[in-house]
Amino acid sequence: MNTSDYFHRVAIIGLGLMGGSWGLALKRCGFPGRRVGCDRPEVLHRALASGAVDEGSPAPAEAVRDAELIILATPVGVILDLLPQVKAAAPPGALVTDVGSTKRLICQRARELFGEEPLFLGGHPLAGKERSGLENADAALLENARYVLTPLSPDHLIDERVKAFCSLLTTLGARPFVTEASTHDRAVAFLSHLPQLVSSGVASMIAEQGGEEFLPLELAAAGFRDVTRLAESPYSLWRDICLTNIENIQAALEALIEKLEAMKLHLSDRELEREFQQALRLRERLRKIG
Amino acid sequence: MNTSDYFHRVAIIGLGLMGGSWGLALKRCGFPGRRVGCDRPEVLHRALASGAVDEGSPAPAEAVRDAELIILATPVGVILDLLPQVKAAAPPGALVTDVGSTKRLICQRARELFGEEPLFLGGHPLAGKERSGLENADAALLENARYVLTPLSPDHLIDERVKAFCSLLTTLGARPFVTEASTHDRAVAFLSHLPQLVSSGVASMIAEQGGEEFLPLELAAAGFRDVTRLAESPYSLWRDICLTNIENIQAALEALIEKLEAMKLHLSDRELEREFQQALRLRERLRKIG
Repeated sequence: MNTSDYFHRVAIIGLGLMGGSWGLALKRCGFPGRRVGCDRPEVLHRALASGAVDEGSPAPAEAVRDAELIILATPVGVILDLLPQVKAAAPPGALVTDVGSTKRLICQRARELFGEEPLFLGGHPLAGKERSGLENADAALLENARYVLTPLSPDHLIDERVKAFCSLLTTLGARPFVTEASTHDRAVAFLSHLPQLVSSGVASMIAEQGGEEFLPLELAAAGFRDVTRLAESPYSLWRDICLTNIENIQAALEALIEKLEAMKLHLSDRELEREFQQALRLRERLRKIG
Repeated sequence: MNTSDYFHRVAIIGLGLMGGSWGLALKRCGFPGRRVGCDRPEVLHRALASGAVDEGSPAPAEAVRDAELIILATPVGVILDLLPQVKAAAPPGALVTDVGSTKRLICQRARELFGEEPLFLGGHPLAGKERSGLENADAALLENARYVLTPLSPDHLIDERVKAFCSLLTTLGARPFVTEASTHDRAVAFLSHLPQLVSSGVASMIAEQGGEEFLPLELAAAGFRDVTRLAESPYSLWRDICLTNIENIQAALEALIEKLEAMKLHLSDRELEREFQQALRLRERLRKIG
Protein backbone atom coordinates (compact mmCIF):
# COMPACT_ATOMS: atom_id res chain seq x y z
CA MET A 1 0.00 0.00 0.00
CA ASN A 2 1.31 3.40 -0.88
CA THR A 3 0.75 5.38 2.30
CA SER A 4 1.20 8.67 0.49
CA ASP A 5 -2.18 7.99 -1.16
CA TYR A 6 -3.65 8.55 2.25
CA PHE A 7 -1.38 10.86 4.09
CA HIS A 8 -0.14 13.84 2.13
CA ARG A 9 0.06 16.05 5.15
CA VAL A 10 1.01 14.88 8.63
CA ALA A 11 0.67 17.09 11.68
CA ILE A 12 2.82 16.29 14.71
CA ILE A 13 1.65 18.06 17.84
CA GLY A 14 4.50 18.18 20.35
CA LEU A 15 8.09 17.92 19.14
CA GLY A 16 9.80 16.21 22.05
CA LEU A 17 11.67 12.91 21.88
CA MET A 18 8.77 11.03 20.29
CA GLY A 19 7.31 13.73 18.06
CA GLY A 20 10.78 14.68 16.84
CA SER A 21 11.66 11.04 16.20
CA TRP A 22 8.42 10.57 14.23
CA GLY A 23 9.32 13.56 12.04
CA LEU A 24 12.88 12.38 11.47
CA ALA A 25 11.75 8.80 10.79
CA LEU A 26 9.25 9.97 8.16
CA LYS A 27 12.01 11.94 6.47
CA ARG A 28 14.46 9.04 6.60
CA CYS A 29 12.04 6.61 4.98
CA GLY A 30 11.40 9.05 2.13
CA PHE A 31 7.86 10.09 3.11
CA PRO A 32 6.82 12.25 0.18
CA GLY A 33 4.20 14.36 2.01
CA ARG A 34 4.44 17.47 4.12
CA ARG A 35 5.30 17.30 7.83
CA VAL A 36 3.81 20.10 9.94
CA GLY A 37 4.99 20.50 13.50
CA CYS A 38 3.40 22.25 16.45
CA ASP A 39 5.23 23.29 19.60
CA ARG A 40 6.56 26.40 21.32
CA PRO A 41 8.31 28.78 18.88
CA GLU A 42 11.83 28.00 20.12
CA VAL A 43 11.24 24.25 19.77
CA LEU A 44 9.69 24.73 16.32
CA HIS A 45 12.74 26.72 15.33
CA ARG A 46 15.04 23.85 16.30
CA ALA A 47 12.76 21.25 14.70
CA LEU A 48 12.84 23.12 11.39
CA ALA A 49 16.61 23.48 11.62
CA SER A 50 17.13 19.77 12.31
CA GLY A 51 14.74 18.69 9.55
CA ALA A 52 12.30 17.05 11.96
CA VAL A 53 9.43 18.96 10.25
CA ASP A 54 8.94 20.90 7.03
CA GLU A 55 6.85 23.68 8.49
CA GLY A 56 5.60 24.78 11.86
CA SER A 57 2.71 26.35 13.64
CA PRO A 58 2.41 27.29 17.29
CA ALA A 59 -1.36 26.61 17.32
CA PRO A 60 -2.63 22.99 17.28
CA ALA A 61 -5.91 23.95 15.58
CA GLU A 62 -3.99 25.55 12.77
CA ALA A 63 -1.42 22.76 12.47
CA VAL A 64 -4.04 20.03 12.10
CA ARG A 65 -6.06 21.87 9.46
CA ASP A 66 -5.78 20.01 6.15
CA ALA A 67 -3.75 17.21 7.78
CA GLU A 68 -4.72 13.63 6.89
CA LEU A 69 -2.70 12.17 9.75
CA ILE A 70 -2.49 13.88 13.12
CA ILE A 71 -0.07 12.56 15.73
CA LEU A 72 -0.49 13.84 19.27
CA ALA A 73 2.97 13.52 20.80
CA THR A 74 2.70 15.43 24.06
CA PRO A 75 2.55 14.07 27.62
CA VAL A 76 -0.68 12.24 28.45
CA GLY A 77 -2.21 15.17 30.37
CA VAL A 78 -1.77 17.50 27.41
CA ILE A 79 -3.15 14.88 25.00
CA LEU A 80 -6.30 14.73 27.13
CA ASP A 81 -6.57 18.53 26.95
CA LEU A 82 -5.90 18.63 23.20
CA LEU A 83 -8.53 16.08 22.15
CA PRO A 84 -11.56 18.44 21.99
CA GLN A 85 -9.86 21.15 19.94
CA VAL A 86 -8.19 18.63 17.64
CA LYS A 87 -11.56 16.94 17.09
CA ALA A 88 -13.07 20.32 16.22
CA ALA A 89 -10.29 21.45 13.88
CA ALA A 90 -9.30 18.22 12.11
CA PRO A 91 -10.67 17.48 8.62
CA PRO A 92 -13.41 14.76 8.62
CA GLY A 93 -11.19 12.41 6.61
CA ALA A 94 -8.29 12.61 9.06
CA LEU A 95 -6.88 9.89 11.27
CA VAL A 96 -5.99 11.22 14.72
CA THR A 97 -3.58 9.13 16.77
CA ASP A 98 -1.41 9.68 19.82
CA VAL A 99 1.74 8.31 21.42
CA GLY A 100 0.62 8.51 25.05
CA SER A 101 2.10 6.02 27.51
CA THR A 102 -1.27 5.19 29.05
CA LYS A 103 -4.30 4.50 26.90
CA ARG A 104 -7.43 3.94 28.97
CA LEU A 105 -8.25 7.58 29.82
CA ILE A 106 -7.22 8.87 26.41
CA CYS A 107 -9.38 6.29 24.60
CA GLN A 108 -12.27 6.91 26.98
CA ARG A 109 -12.13 10.67 26.30
CA ALA A 110 -11.70 10.06 22.56
CA ARG A 111 -14.70 7.73 22.53
CA GLU A 112 -16.83 10.52 24.01
CA LEU A 113 -15.63 13.00 21.37
CA PHE A 114 -14.91 11.14 18.15
CA GLY A 115 -17.03 9.26 15.65
CA GLU A 116 -15.53 8.09 12.41
CA GLU A 117 -14.93 11.54 10.93
CA PRO A 118 -12.27 12.15 12.00
CA LEU A 119 -11.29 8.75 13.30
CA PHE A 120 -9.29 8.27 16.48
CA LEU A 121 -6.76 5.45 16.98
CA GLY A 122 -4.87 5.09 20.26
CA GLY A 123 -1.17 4.47 19.88
CA HIS A 124 1.86 3.83 22.07
CA PRO A 125 5.28 3.16 20.60
CA LEU A 126 7.25 1.02 23.07
CA ALA A 127 10.40 2.99 22.49
CA GLY A 128 12.11 5.59 24.55
CA LYS A 129 15.24 6.85 26.12
CA GLU A 130 16.16 8.02 29.58
CA ARG A 131 16.63 11.47 28.08
CA SER A 132 13.69 13.31 26.62
CA GLY A 133 13.38 16.32 24.35
CA LEU A 134 13.85 17.10 20.67
CA GLU A 135 17.63 17.10 21.11
CA ASN A 136 17.47 13.35 21.74
CA ALA A 137 15.08 12.61 18.85
CA ASP A 138 16.32 9.83 16.62
CA ALA A 139 15.20 8.78 13.13
CA ALA A 140 15.74 5.14 14.17
CA LEU A 141 13.87 5.25 17.50
CA LEU A 142 10.84 3.38 16.15
CA GLU A 143 12.86 0.78 14.33
CA ASN A 144 12.10 -2.70 15.64
CA ALA A 145 9.95 -1.19 18.38
CA ARG A 146 6.53 -2.65 19.09
CA TYR A 147 3.91 -0.01 18.38
CA VAL A 148 0.78 -0.69 20.41
CA LEU A 149 -2.51 0.28 18.77
CA THR A 150 -5.72 0.49 20.78
CA PRO A 151 -8.60 1.11 18.35
CA LEU A 152 -11.83 2.46 19.87
CA SER A 153 -13.64 -0.40 18.10
CA PRO A 154 -12.37 -3.58 16.41
CA ASP A 155 -14.19 -2.40 13.26
CA HIS A 156 -11.72 0.43 12.91
CA LEU A 157 -9.02 -2.06 11.99
CA ILE A 158 -10.54 -2.37 8.53
CA ASP A 159 -10.81 1.39 8.04
CA GLU A 160 -8.54 2.38 5.15
CA ARG A 161 -6.89 5.09 7.22
CA VAL A 162 -5.96 2.63 9.98
CA LYS A 163 -4.67 0.17 7.39
CA ALA A 164 -2.59 2.92 5.81
CA PHE A 165 -1.24 3.91 9.23
CA CYS A 166 -0.22 0.30 10.01
CA SER A 167 1.47 0.13 6.66
CA LEU A 168 3.31 3.38 7.43
CA LEU A 169 4.45 1.97 10.78
CA THR A 170 5.84 -1.08 9.03
CA THR A 171 7.66 1.17 6.57
CA LEU A 172 9.26 2.91 9.55
CA GLY A 173 10.40 -0.47 10.89
CA ALA A 174 7.95 -0.54 13.82
CA ARG A 175 5.89 -3.62 14.68
CA PRO A 176 2.16 -2.88 15.19
CA PHE A 177 0.53 -4.74 18.09
CA VAL A 178 -3.22 -4.40 18.56
CA THR A 179 -4.79 -4.72 21.99
CA GLU A 180 -7.42 -3.13 24.20
CA ALA A 181 -6.67 0.04 26.11
CA SER A 182 -7.40 -1.61 29.45
CA THR A 183 -5.16 -4.60 28.66
CA HIS A 184 -2.44 -2.21 27.55
CA ASP A 185 -2.61 -0.16 30.74
CA ARG A 186 -2.51 -3.21 33.00
CA ALA A 187 0.39 -4.73 31.05
CA VAL A 188 2.49 -1.58 31.04
CA ALA A 189 1.80 -1.06 34.75
CA PHE A 190 3.49 -4.41 35.41
CA LEU A 191 6.05 -4.40 32.60
CA SER A 192 7.07 -0.77 32.35
CA HIS A 193 5.78 1.42 35.16
CA LEU A 194 6.64 -1.05 37.92
CA PRO A 195 10.23 -1.56 36.69
CA GLN A 196 10.61 2.23 36.58
CA LEU A 197 9.33 2.69 40.13
CA VAL A 198 11.44 -0.22 41.40
CA SER A 199 14.52 1.22 39.76
CA SER A 200 13.93 4.69 41.19
CA GLY A 201 12.86 3.15 44.50
CA VAL A 202 16.03 1.06 44.90
CA ALA A 203 18.23 4.06 44.04
CA SER A 204 16.30 6.40 46.33
CA MET A 205 16.39 3.90 49.20
CA ILE A 206 20.16 3.39 48.80
CA ALA A 207 20.63 7.18 48.87
CA GLU A 208 19.04 7.17 52.32
CA GLN A 209 21.25 4.39 53.74
CA GLY A 210 23.77 6.66 55.42
CA GLY A 211 27.13 7.83 54.17
CA GLU A 212 30.07 6.29 52.38
CA GLU A 213 31.40 4.67 55.52
CA PHE A 214 28.17 2.79 56.14
CA LEU A 215 27.57 1.84 52.52
CA PRO A 216 30.53 2.44 50.19
CA LEU A 217 29.10 2.89 46.70
CA GLU A 218 32.38 1.57 45.31
CA LEU A 219 30.91 -1.86 46.04
CA ALA A 220 28.14 -1.34 43.49
CA ALA A 221 28.84 -3.57 40.50
CA ALA A 222 27.22 -4.03 37.10
CA GLY A 223 24.05 -5.57 38.52
CA PHE A 224 23.25 -2.52 40.61
CA ARG A 225 23.89 -0.27 37.64
CA ASP A 226 21.51 -2.33 35.48
CA VAL A 227 18.73 -2.36 38.01
CA THR A 228 18.96 1.39 38.64
CA ARG A 229 19.58 2.54 35.06
CA LEU A 230 15.92 3.51 34.60
CA ALA A 231 16.25 5.81 37.62
CA GLU A 232 17.83 8.36 35.26
CA SER A 233 14.45 8.86 33.66
CA PRO A 234 13.10 12.22 34.83
CA TYR A 235 9.96 12.54 36.95
CA SER A 236 8.44 14.85 34.33
CA LEU A 237 8.02 11.84 32.01
CA TRP A 238 6.34 9.79 34.74
CA ARG A 239 4.04 12.27 36.42
CA ASP A 240 1.15 11.87 33.96
CA ILE A 241 1.72 8.14 33.65
CA CYS A 242 1.34 7.63 37.39
CA LEU A 243 -1.67 9.93 37.51
CA THR A 244 -3.50 8.18 34.68
CA ASN A 245 -2.70 4.56 35.57
CA ILE A 246 -2.74 4.72 39.34
CA GLU A 247 -4.92 1.65 40.12
CA ASN A 248 -2.92 -0.68 37.89
CA ILE A 249 0.39 0.63 39.25
CA GLN A 250 -0.82 0.19 42.81
CA ALA A 251 -1.79 -3.40 42.01
CA ALA A 252 1.62 -4.06 40.47
CA LEU A 253 3.45 -2.53 43.46
CA GLU A 254 1.27 -4.56 45.82
CA ALA A 255 2.06 -7.79 43.95
CA LEU A 256 5.78 -7.06 44.08
CA ILE A 257 5.71 -6.13 47.77
CA GLU A 258 4.00 -9.45 48.49
CA LYS A 259 6.61 -11.27 46.45
CA LEU A 260 9.48 -9.55 48.28
CA GLU A 261 7.87 -10.32 51.65
CA ALA A 262 7.69 -13.98 50.66
CA MET A 263 11.31 -14.02 49.50
CA LYS A 264 12.37 -12.39 52.78
CA LEU A 265 10.71 -15.23 54.68
CA HIS A 266 12.28 -17.91 52.52
CA LEU A 267 15.88 -16.73 52.13
CA SER A 268 17.19 -19.91 53.69
CA ASP A 269 14.93 -22.55 52.16
CA ARG A 270 14.12 -24.10 48.81
CA GLU A 271 11.12 -21.86 48.23
CA LEU A 272 13.65 -19.24 47.09
CA GLU A 273 14.94 -21.71 44.51
CA ARG A 274 11.42 -21.99 43.11
CA GLU A 275 11.29 -18.19 42.71
CA PHE A 276 14.62 -18.15 40.88
CA GLN A 277 13.51 -20.94 38.56
CA GLN A 278 10.19 -19.28 37.80
CA ALA A 279 12.06 -16.02 37.08
CA LEU A 280 14.48 -17.82 34.78
CA ARG A 281 11.61 -19.38 32.83
CA LEU A 282 10.03 -15.95 32.35
CA ARG A 283 13.30 -14.65 30.93
CA GLU A 284 13.31 -17.61 28.52
CA ARG A 285 9.76 -16.77 27.39
CA LEU A 286 10.84 -13.17 26.92
CA ARG A 287 13.76 -14.21 24.74
CA LYS A 288 11.49 -16.23 22.51
CA ILE A 289 9.15 -13.26 22.02
CA GLY A 290 12.12 -11.17 20.92
CA MET B 1 57.16 -4.83 42.90
CA ASN B 2 57.97 -8.06 41.13
CA THR B 3 55.22 -10.36 42.35
CA SER B 4 57.05 -13.44 41.14
CA ASP B 5 59.53 -12.83 43.96
CA TYR B 6 56.71 -13.80 46.26
CA PHE B 7 54.48 -16.11 44.35
CA HIS B 8 56.20 -18.81 42.35
CA ARG B 9 53.42 -21.27 42.80
CA VAL B 10 49.72 -20.37 42.92
CA ALA B 11 47.06 -22.88 43.89
CA ILE B 12 43.51 -22.22 42.72
CA ILE B 13 40.95 -24.35 44.54
CA GLY B 14 37.78 -24.50 42.48
CA LEU B 15 37.90 -23.88 38.73
CA GLY B 16 34.53 -22.35 38.03
CA LEU B 17 33.93 -18.93 36.48
CA MET B 18 36.13 -17.10 39.00
CA GLY B 19 38.86 -19.69 39.55
CA GLY B 20 39.13 -20.29 35.82
CA SER B 21 39.25 -16.55 35.13
CA TRP B 22 42.00 -16.12 37.75
CA GLY B 23 44.06 -18.80 36.02
CA LEU B 24 43.53 -17.35 32.56
CA ALA B 25 44.23 -13.81 33.78
CA LEU B 26 47.54 -14.90 35.35
CA LYS B 27 48.53 -16.51 32.08
CA ARG B 28 47.53 -13.48 30.04
CA CYS B 29 49.57 -11.07 32.15
CA GLY B 30 52.65 -13.25 31.77
CA PHE B 31 52.77 -14.63 35.31
CA PRO B 32 56.03 -16.59 35.33
CA GLY B 33 55.16 -19.02 38.14
CA ARG B 34 53.29 -22.28 38.21
CA ARG B 35 49.47 -22.42 38.39
CA VAL B 36 48.08 -25.49 40.13
CA GLY B 37 44.35 -26.14 39.95
CA CYS B 38 42.10 -28.26 42.10
CA ASP B 39 38.66 -29.47 41.10
CA ARG B 40 36.87 -32.64 40.02
CA PRO B 41 38.88 -34.63 37.46
CA GLU B 42 36.65 -33.74 34.50
CA VAL B 43 36.87 -30.02 35.31
CA LEU B 44 40.64 -30.29 35.81
CA HIS B 45 40.89 -31.94 32.43
CA ARG B 46 39.11 -29.05 30.75
CA ALA B 47 41.09 -26.47 32.75
CA LEU B 48 44.36 -28.00 31.60
CA ALA B 49 43.12 -28.12 28.02
CA SER B 50 42.06 -24.46 28.04
CA GLY B 51 45.29 -23.31 29.67
CA ALA B 52 43.55 -22.08 32.82
CA VAL B 53 46.12 -23.99 34.93
CA ASP B 54 49.49 -25.65 34.35
CA GLU B 55 48.87 -28.70 36.50
CA GLY B 56 46.07 -30.19 38.52
CA SER B 57 45.28 -32.11 41.63
CA PRO B 58 41.94 -33.43 42.82
CA ALA B 59 42.91 -32.99 46.51
CA PRO B 60 43.03 -29.49 48.05
CA ALA B 61 45.64 -30.52 50.65
CA GLU B 62 47.92 -31.69 47.90
CA ALA B 63 47.29 -28.72 45.60
CA VAL B 64 48.18 -26.15 48.26
CA ARG B 65 51.41 -27.87 49.32
CA ASP B 66 54.38 -25.71 48.33
CA ALA B 67 52.06 -22.95 47.07
CA GLU B 68 52.90 -19.38 48.10
CA LEU B 69 49.51 -18.04 47.05
CA ILE B 70 46.33 -20.05 47.60
CA ILE B 71 43.07 -18.81 46.11
CA LEU B 72 39.87 -20.44 47.35
CA ALA B 73 37.42 -20.01 44.47
CA THR B 74 34.50 -22.23 45.45
CA PRO B 75 31.02 -21.22 46.67
CA VAL B 76 31.01 -19.70 50.18
CA GLY B 77 29.81 -22.89 51.89
CA VAL B 78 32.69 -24.91 50.45
CA ILE B 79 35.19 -22.18 51.36
CA LEU B 80 34.02 -22.45 54.98
CA ASP B 81 34.53 -26.22 54.84
CA LEU B 82 37.95 -25.92 53.18
CA LEU B 83 39.50 -23.47 55.63
CA PRO B 84 40.69 -26.02 58.28
CA GLN B 85 42.37 -28.40 55.85
CA VAL B 86 43.93 -25.57 53.86
CA LYS B 87 45.27 -24.06 57.08
CA ALA B 88 46.76 -27.44 58.00
CA ALA B 89 48.31 -28.16 54.60
CA ALA B 90 49.51 -24.72 53.46
CA PRO B 91 53.17 -23.75 53.92
CA PRO B 92 53.74 -21.23 56.76
CA GLY B 93 54.89 -18.57 54.32
CA ALA B 94 51.75 -18.79 52.18
CA LEU B 95 49.03 -16.20 51.67
CA VAL B 96 45.58 -17.78 51.64
CA THR B 97 42.80 -15.72 50.07
CA ASP B 98 39.32 -16.42 48.76
CA VAL B 99 36.81 -14.98 46.30
CA GLY B 100 33.64 -15.59 48.34
CA SER B 101 30.70 -13.25 47.81
CA THR B 102 30.12 -12.80 51.55
CA LYS B 103 32.96 -12.13 53.93
CA ARG B 104 31.81 -11.98 57.54
CA LEU B 105 31.48 -15.73 58.23
CA ILE B 106 34.55 -16.62 56.20
CA CYS B 107 36.71 -14.05 58.00
CA GLN B 108 35.29 -15.09 61.36
CA ARG B 109 36.16 -18.73 60.71
CA ALA B 110 39.58 -17.76 59.33
CA ARG B 111 40.29 -15.65 62.41
CA GLU B 112 39.65 -18.70 64.60
CA LEU B 113 42.01 -20.83 62.50
CA PHE B 114 44.78 -18.64 61.13
CA GLY B 115 47.63 -16.71 62.66
CA GLU B 116 50.24 -15.12 60.43
CA GLU B 117 51.72 -18.36 59.14
CA PRO B 118 50.01 -18.88 56.83
CA LEU B 119 48.24 -15.55 56.55
CA PHE B 120 44.59 -15.24 55.52
CA LEU B 121 43.23 -12.31 53.52
CA GLY B 122 39.52 -12.12 52.64
CA GLY B 123 38.83 -11.24 49.02
CA HIS B 124 35.84 -10.61 46.77
CA PRO B 125 36.25 -9.57 43.16
CA LEU B 126 33.19 -7.53 42.13
CA ALA B 127 33.01 -9.22 38.78
CA GLY B 128 30.74 -11.87 37.47
CA LYS B 129 28.46 -13.05 34.76
CA GLU B 130 24.99 -14.48 34.70
CA ARG B 131 26.51 -17.73 33.55
CA SER B 132 28.87 -19.63 35.81
CA GLY B 133 31.34 -22.44 35.21
CA LEU B 134 34.77 -22.83 33.69
CA GLU B 135 33.31 -22.62 30.19
CA ASN B 136 32.48 -18.96 30.86
CA ALA B 137 35.86 -18.13 32.42
CA ASP B 138 37.47 -15.07 30.89
CA ALA B 139 41.05 -13.78 31.13
CA ALA B 140 39.65 -10.22 31.22
CA LEU B 141 36.99 -10.77 33.90
CA LEU B 142 38.99 -9.00 36.61
CA GLU B 143 39.99 -6.11 34.41
CA ASN B 144 38.71 -2.84 35.81
CA ALA B 145 36.78 -4.73 38.49
CA ARG B 146 36.95 -3.58 42.07
CA TYR B 147 38.54 -6.31 44.16
CA VAL B 148 37.41 -6.02 47.77
CA LEU B 149 39.97 -7.06 50.40
CA THR B 150 38.95 -7.68 54.00
CA PRO B 151 42.11 -8.28 56.04
CA LEU B 152 41.65 -9.97 59.42
CA SER B 153 43.65 -7.10 60.94
CA PRO B 154 44.70 -3.70 59.55
CA ASP B 155 48.32 -4.69 60.32
CA HIS B 156 48.16 -7.30 57.62
CA LEU B 157 48.11 -4.55 55.01
CA ILE B 158 51.83 -4.01 55.55
CA ASP B 159 52.64 -7.72 55.34
CA GLU B 160 54.84 -8.28 52.28
CA ARG B 161 52.59 -11.08 51.02
CA VAL B 162 49.52 -8.82 51.09
CA LYS B 163 51.45 -6.03 49.38
CA ALA B 164 52.59 -8.49 46.71
CA PHE B 165 49.01 -9.70 46.25
CA CYS B 166 47.72 -6.12 45.81
CA SER B 167 50.46 -5.54 43.30
CA LEU B 168 49.44 -8.70 41.45
CA LEU B 169 45.81 -7.54 41.39
CA THR B 170 46.89 -4.25 39.87
CA THR B 171 48.90 -6.13 37.25
CA LEU B 172 45.72 -8.03 36.35
CA GLY B 173 43.88 -4.71 35.93
CA ALA B 174 41.75 -5.08 39.09
CA ARG B 175 41.30 -2.25 41.58
CA PRO B 176 41.88 -3.28 45.23
CA PHE B 177 39.43 -1.82 47.74
CA VAL B 178 40.04 -2.46 51.44
CA THR B 179 37.17 -2.55 53.90
CA GLU B 180 35.89 -4.51 56.88
CA ALA B 181 34.06 -7.80 56.37
CA SER B 182 30.94 -6.50 58.13
CA THR B 183 30.88 -3.30 56.03
CA HIS B 184 31.36 -5.41 52.90
CA ASP B 185 28.50 -7.73 53.75
CA ARG B 186 26.09 -4.89 54.53
CA ALA B 187 27.07 -3.01 51.38
CA VAL B 188 26.72 -6.01 49.07
CA ALA B 189 23.38 -6.91 50.68
CA PHE B 190 22.06 -3.52 49.53
CA LEU B 191 24.05 -3.10 46.32
CA SER B 192 24.25 -6.62 44.95
CA HIS B 193 22.06 -9.15 46.76
CA LEU B 194 19.01 -6.87 46.88
CA PRO B 195 19.19 -6.03 43.15
CA GLN B 196 19.43 -9.75 42.42
CA LEU B 197 16.41 -10.60 44.55
CA VAL B 198 14.42 -7.68 43.13
CA SER B 199 15.24 -8.76 39.61
CA SER B 200 14.26 -12.38 40.25
CA GLY B 201 11.28 -11.20 42.30
CA VAL B 202 9.90 -8.96 39.54
CA ALA B 203 10.32 -11.71 36.94
CA SER B 204 8.81 -14.38 39.20
CA MET B 205 5.86 -12.14 40.09
CA ILE B 206 5.18 -11.34 36.42
CA ALA B 207 5.25 -15.07 35.66
CA GLU B 208 2.37 -15.47 38.10
CA GLN B 209 0.21 -12.70 36.59
CA GLY B 210 -1.92 -14.91 34.41
CA GLY B 211 -1.56 -15.75 30.75
CA GLU B 212 -0.78 -13.86 27.62
CA GLU B 213 -4.24 -12.42 27.33
CA PHE B 214 -4.10 -10.84 30.75
CA LEU B 215 -0.52 -9.61 30.43
CA PRO B 216 0.92 -9.80 26.90
CA LEU B 217 4.70 -10.02 27.32
CA GLU B 218 5.05 -8.38 23.92
CA LEU B 219 4.52 -5.14 25.82
CA ALA B 220 7.76 -5.62 27.75
CA ALA B 221 10.29 -3.07 26.49
CA ALA B 222 13.97 -2.43 27.18
CA GLY B 223 13.37 -1.24 30.74
CA PHE B 224 11.79 -4.53 31.79
CA ARG B 225 14.62 -6.46 30.19
CA ASP B 226 17.20 -4.37 32.08
CA VAL B 227 15.52 -4.76 35.43
CA THR B 228 15.11 -8.52 35.03
CA ARG B 229 18.45 -9.29 33.38
CA LEU B 230 19.96 -10.48 36.67
CA ALA B 231 17.13 -13.01 36.97
CA GLU B 232 19.12 -15.22 34.59
CA SER B 233 21.62 -15.81 37.36
CA PRO B 234 21.10 -19.35 38.68
CA TYR B 235 19.96 -20.06 42.23
CA SER B 236 23.04 -22.23 42.79
CA LEU B 237 25.16 -19.06 42.84
CA TRP B 238 22.88 -17.36 45.35
CA ARG B 239 22.07 -20.12 47.78
CA ASP B 240 25.19 -19.71 49.93
CA ILE B 241 25.08 -15.94 49.64
CA CYS B 242 21.56 -15.81 51.05
CA LEU B 243 22.44 -18.31 53.78
CA THR B 244 25.54 -16.42 54.92
CA ASN B 245 24.21 -12.85 54.73
CA ILE B 246 20.63 -13.36 55.76
CA GLU B 247 20.25 -10.53 58.32
CA ASN B 248 21.69 -7.88 56.01
CA ILE B 249 19.57 -9.08 53.09
CA GLN B 250 16.45 -9.05 55.24
CA ALA B 251 17.25 -5.48 56.28
CA ALA B 252 17.74 -4.46 52.65
CA LEU B 253 14.48 -6.12 51.55
CA GLU B 254 12.68 -4.46 54.45
CA ALA B 255 14.04 -1.03 53.49
CA LEU B 256 12.94 -1.52 49.87
CA ILE B 257 9.49 -2.77 50.84
CA GLU B 258 9.03 0.35 52.99
CA LYS B 259 10.15 2.52 50.10
CA LEU B 260 7.73 0.83 47.67
CA GLU B 261 4.89 1.18 50.20
CA ALA B 262 5.65 4.91 50.44
CA MET B 263 5.75 5.29 46.66
CA LYS B 264 2.45 3.44 46.36
CA LEU B 265 0.88 5.98 48.73
CA HIS B 266 2.34 8.95 46.88
CA LEU B 267 1.81 8.05 43.22
CA SER B 268 -0.26 11.17 42.67
CA ASP B 269 1.65 13.78 44.66
CA ARG B 270 4.98 15.58 44.67
CA GLU B 271 6.50 13.18 47.20
CA LEU B 272 7.07 10.87 44.22
CA GLU B 273 9.03 13.64 42.51
CA ARG B 274 11.33 13.81 45.55
CA GLU B 275 12.00 10.05 45.23
CA PHE B 276 12.83 10.40 41.54
CA GLN B 277 15.18 13.31 42.23
CA GLN B 278 16.92 11.49 45.08
CA ALA B 279 17.34 8.45 42.80
CA LEU B 280 18.75 10.61 40.01
CA ARG B 281 21.31 12.13 42.39
CA LEU B 282 22.41 8.66 43.45
CA ARG B 283 22.99 7.72 39.82
CA GLU B 284 25.09 10.88 39.43
CA ARG B 285 27.20 9.91 42.47
CA LEU B 286 27.60 6.45 40.98
CA ARG B 287 28.81 7.87 37.69
CA LYS B 288 31.45 9.94 39.48
CA ILE B 289 32.75 6.87 41.31
CA GLY B 290 33.12 5.10 37.97
